[in-house]
Amino acid sequence: MAGGVGSRFWPKSRKSLPKQYLNLLGEETLIQAVSHRLQVIVPAERILVISTKSQRALLKVQLPWLRPFQLILEPFGKNTAPCIGLAALHLVRRDREAVMMILPSDHLISDTDKFAQLLQDAVAVIRQNPEALVTIGIEPTYPATGYGYIQRGAPLEAAAGKAFRVRAFAEKPDYEVAQQFISTGEFLWNSGIFVWRAANILHCIEDLMPDLSSGLKEIDKAIGTSKEARVTERVYKQIRSDSIDYGIMEHASNVIVLEGRFGWSDVGSWEEVYKISPHDESGNVLVNNPIVRNCRNCYIDAGARVVSLIGVEDLIVVDTPDALLICRKDQSQDVKWVVEKLKHSGQLKVL
Amino acid sequence: MAGGVGSRFWPKSRKSLPKQYLNLLGEETLIQAVSHRLQVIVPAERILVISTKSQRALLKVQLPWLRPFQLILEPFGKNTAPCIGLAALHLVRRDREAVMMILPSDHLISDTDKFAQLLQDAVAVIRQNPEALVTIGIEPTYPATGYGYIQRGAPLEAAAGKAFRVRAFAEKPDYEVAQQFISTGEFLWNSGIFVWRAANILHCIEDLMPDLSSGLKEIDKAIGTSKEARVTERVYKQIRSDSIDYGIMEHASNVIVLEGRFGWSDVGSWEEVYKISPHDESGNVLVNNPIVRNCRNCYIDAGARVVSLIGVEDLIVVDTPDALLICRKDQSQDVKWVVEKLKHSGQLKVL
Repeated sequence: MAGGVGSRFWPKSRKSLPKQYLNLLGEETLIQAVSHRLQVIVPAERILVISTKSQRALLKVQLPWLRPFQLILEPFGKNTAPCIGLAALHLVRRDREAVMMILPSDHLISDTDKFAQLLQDAVAVIRQNPEALVTIGIEPTYPATGYGYIQRGAPLEAAAGKAFRVRAFAEKPDYEVAQQFISTGEFLWNSGIFVWRAANILHCIEDLMPDLSSGLKEIDKAIGTSKEARVTERVYKQIRSDSIDYGIMEHASNVIVLEGRFGWSDVGSWEEVYKISPHDESGNVLVNNPIVRNCRNCYIDAGARVVSLIGVEDLIVVDTPDALLICRKDQSQDVKWVVEKLKHSGQLKVL
Repeated sequence: MAGGVGSRFWPKSRKSLPKQYLNLLGEETLIQAVSHRLQVIVPAERILVISTKSQRALLKVQLPWLRPFQLILEPFGKNTAPCIGLAALHLVRRDREAVMMILPSDHLISDTDKFAQLLQDAVAVIRQNPEALVTIGIEPTYPATGYGYIQRGAPLEAAAGKAFRVRAFAEKPDYEVAQQFISTGEFLWNSGIFVWRAANILHCIEDLMPDLSSGLKEIDKAIGTSKEARVTERVYKQIRSDSIDYGIMEHASNVIVLEGRFGWSDVGSWEEVYKISPHDESGNVLVNNPIVRNCRNCYIDAGARVVSLIGVEDLIVVDTPDALLICRKDQSQDVKWVVEKLKHSGQLKVL
């Protein structure tokens, strides 16, 4: 899933350059990294990318190996439920028994081996429980308020890995609630990574999201015909924007969570990029050679210009050819405010 | 005197754009402001500018009313003694009795009326004491470590204004010494503003700086001939770089200081620009419309780009098309370090 547009990484991320296409952490962009991680367990030609039309050119540049049949384009984003439904539709047409692994393209995973193992465990669970919906839960390392949580129930017998029935899903909590979650030992972060049979999720959509289901059926009839684009666009205009969590996971009966710990992060803010990145001896993360004197615990991306800093601490500084952000590290969630401000003042060129 | 090159206002000041040509404080540049202040007391055509060849184009743009005979160009800077000597030479050729007022072009003066009055008082002192060297001392408002000091001696009888004999000159002191200076009530800041007869300073140079004097005499013979530029350049290559304070004022016997208080500053750092500029209710000085949220006590010049700041305090931020400075306000003297660093790393394009 690569259709997301984010404003949390402005000024590096833009309307036309969402987070997944940025190299926030090293040489590779996030989508390049996830595609490389997947190639460890599945052949490259069985990786499909579902994105929106506006990102076609970016995908061509960043994933040049992607062939036309591996790219599914939504006319525009309508959250994860339509996206996953449309992908499932295409998969079932190719292979009625296809098992699909659904991965956001903008997450960070540091332990690729453990990650690959867990996905394979998940597929094994599906083989044994063909009607199951598997979601990956991350063992929390701190009381995060930026993630949803999954409360696990009874362990699944005879399953590879640590598989559990799901007792409940919880929205992003406040800090006190997050602490309670952690203290019970029963709550996992909701990673947004799913594994299931494509045909099964279409059945679930038919049961639980009938409007989406009938829209998908209309699209299904048009696929491969001259009407495909027109029908898809008409359907997308009508269907509701819903997440798969809200539309399916919170209501389905057959949900299993697999517990993993592989250095996962959805990299939600500049502060998080700072935390994840390797620091120098002064606690700084210096990208593109800024000139610094007496600076500590800063994330500084100098872009292509001469950027010099003297005596500053705990700052995020991100310079781009036409826009600059200087932000106290613990207020980097307010970048969204800047983006809104720019939108309202009509400065669309830098968005 | 407009020949200075400074690195303390990088990245706004450059080798090719010294401080006096910047509008650090309002619409006018510093040299435009000083020339307007002078026009209150002398006709515009009696203002001469002494600068270096490299600044000719800048002067033409910023002081378009300046006619060729009002511009004296040194081949390159050799501190204030040669500069003042050369200016005196030209003045004496025009009027043997000329009284010259010497003003640095990069200072700030807020009370123009008091300033004009004091300069006129100084001229009156010279009329009564034709051999005197008058220097303007500023009543200190805090124990500054960035200025030299003048210790005043006996008051001058029958002088207009507060005129005193000079007891001693003192170099820039450390903070404790500066406090002692202030507590005596006898010390004034050395403004670098002088008033004297042009012929008199040439006599003093003959007595106290014989090498410079003979160089000036060589130039004098060449002025108006085809050899003028060549001779001036040869002399400038030979003479020592000396300040008028060190070469003359500290050794001359006939020095008088006039005490003034007219909101004077030599605007020595970005921190000082911040202090002098009008602040908004959050204590910020915002130039060129930066987008700020939750920021306090900052000086921010956004230049021509979109610059946004979140949650920062006590910063100097100066953005220019090719270089950016972010500096803790109380460390803005370290801008010189950045300039040195850039010089050593060969990044001359941004200097």
